[in-house]
Amino acid sequence: MTSRNVSCFPEARKVAIFGGTHGNEMSGVMLVNMWKKNGAEIQRNGMVTKPFITNPRAVEKCTRYIDTDLNRAFTPENLSGPWDEGLPYEVQRAKEINQMFGPKGSPDAYDVIFDLHNTTSNMGSTLILESSTDHFNLQMVHYIKKSIAPASCAVLLNEHPHLKYSTSRSVAKHPIGLEVGPQPQGVLRSNIFESMRDILKHALDFIELFNTGVEFPPCAVDVFKVIERVDYPRDANGNITAMVHPHLQDCDWEPLNPGDPMFQTFDGRAVPYQGSSPVYPTFINEAAYYEKQQAFVITRREMLAATAIRKSI
Amino acid sequence: MTSRNVSCFPEARKVAIFGGTHGNEMSGVMLVNMWKKNGAEIQRNGMVTKPFITNPRAVEKCTRYIDTDLNRAFTPENLSGPWDEGLPYEVQRAKEINQMFGPKGSPDAYDVIFDLHNTTSNMGSTLILESSTDHFNLQMVHYIKKSIAPASCAVLLNEHPHLKYSTSRSVAKHPIGLEVGPQPQGVLRSNIFESMRDILKHALDFIELFNTGVEFPPCAVDVFKVIERVDYPRDANGNITAMVHPHLQDCDWEPLNPGDPMFQTFDGRAVPYQGSSPVYPTFINEAAYYEKQQAFVITRREMLAATAIRKSI
Ligand SMILES: [Zn+2]
Ligand SMILES: [Zn+2]
Repeated sequence: MTSRNVSCFPEARKVAIFGGTHGNEMSGVMLVNMWKKNGAEIQRNGMVTKPFITNPRAVEKCTRYIDTDLNRAFTPENLSGPWDEGLPYEVQRAKEINQMFGPKGSPDAYDVIFDLHNTTSNMGSTLILESSTDHFNLQMVHYIKKSIAPASCAVLLNEHPHLKYSTSRSVAKHPIGLEVGPQPQGVLRSNIFESMRDILKHALDFIELFNTGVEFPPCAVDVFKVIERVDYPRDANGNITAMVHPHLQDCDWEPLNPGDPMFQTFDGRAVPYQGSSPVYPTFINEAAYYEKQQAFVITRREMLAATAIRKSI
Repeated sequence: MTSRNVSCFPEARKVAIFGGTHGNEMSGVMLVNMWKKNGAEIQRNGMVTKPFITNPRAVEKCTRYIDTDLNRAFTPENLSGPWDEGLPYEVQRAKEINQMFGPKGSPDAYDVIFDLHNTTSNMGSTLILESSTDHFNLQMVHYIKKSIAPASCAVLLNEHPHLKYSTSRSVAKHPIGLEVGPQPQGVLRSNIFESMRDILKHALDFIELFNTGVEFPPCAVDVFKVIERVDYPRDANGNITAMVHPHLQDCDWEPLNPGDPMFQTFDGRAVPYQGSSPVYPTFINEAAYYEKQQAFVITRREMLAATAIRKSI
């Protein structure tokens, strides 16, 4: 069978759905809280699907985080360092989550963690992968994209050596982020909520099918690969001196060509993109990224090949 | 001259522009900070126009407020009570602002205060009045509406005995709110920023014309009058059990008729509006109003008559 180049994975029996990794991203918070009360729609045969609020104190205050960004806190140093009551809340929380759903990198870790996020950017539904060689996840996103058509769903690949970060979901063997927007922080929009819910349904269906022994044939997945972070123009004091240009605002996933305007200064001057070839910006004007010195990220489009997969016997 | 029913007001020489009354409403914050550096575009003959950040600590943290909503803090009790270091930050701040720009209700108070706000609701540009009988302000909003056409600008009148609140701008003789959306909290959108800037320009032009002695003839102003606040459906614990219905979301200022869906429960049921006549909802799904138990406000449309005005001699 390996001659046909089929990747084999154990059944995925332990699945978690994280909401509230950022406490003001309401779709994930509300879905997870709903499923904690009644999980019928996320139950599948032979699987345990655990809905879980990762940052309850941030959810309570409807803020992104209390002390530090939880979705950057799952570093080896944080996870392996000694416990201390004086640690930032989210570092304590990362250690607890790692015990419950990991340990990260161990055989005991959860098979799949979906982490539900919202963005203020006009990204639509986006699945976020951390590896171009996790064929289980590639097959899953391929399945989801097919299942939700004619609705669409972009795939963002972030395995950039410097721009990749230590996510909550990275505790799992197969981490997958689901980012849906545009939705303001602290707001619940029914269209965004229902899109997220629908994608989760298909994702769980995929895992159930996989567990029953279905073999998924090789496929290709269209992804947007993170290449570079672009900051706002700033003055000597670090204050921004320009806004995302109206021609770029809300144009996530559309090509930005050399010479196209990126920013508009407060005195009305356009700042053009000066790269040498077209790129695909995304996370354009995300509220949470002003403090991270990021106006948007630049991606390039790539086709990734996924091998056939089935469960190991 | 009074036989022609002309209302006379003193020249408006002291004008302030407030930004950051809510620290995460970025258009006002950025405009005011820009004008503090270079105020050329807000200067007019014979007037002092002071750009001012009302809640600098909230701006610093990019949050709505620190201890309590500044835009509800200008109550007689707060303004007249004794100073105490233990008072909530915004109450201290209200007392300071009242000293600088008021005292509220006194002859020394600023003539006009514009208070710049953003909303996550799809309200477009909205001027907010606190009185139906302030003919100076009615003439100003009439002038602005004419000047920005074909762009449009709604006028919201909040003089409801229970729903009116004690705003920062209420310190002035002629308080006027400018609310522009949709813009997520913590985000600066160029279109919203420029709309706000343009309205301010025309507002200042109006005051300058008035001060030079121009008489403004009687006019009628189309306003939306606040009638009622509508909360989300909630369970016994106070948690919301429904979202704004997709047919209502983003439909600020459009008629809501008896039987039209208002909410969609998490299990997919529509909750209809049960009033007896059409109303005009606004502030639909504003992020900051979840904690205020408000999904939207209901308004009724009215024509207000403004008398002619000119400056007193
Ligand atoms: Zn997030
Ligand atoms: Zn506001």
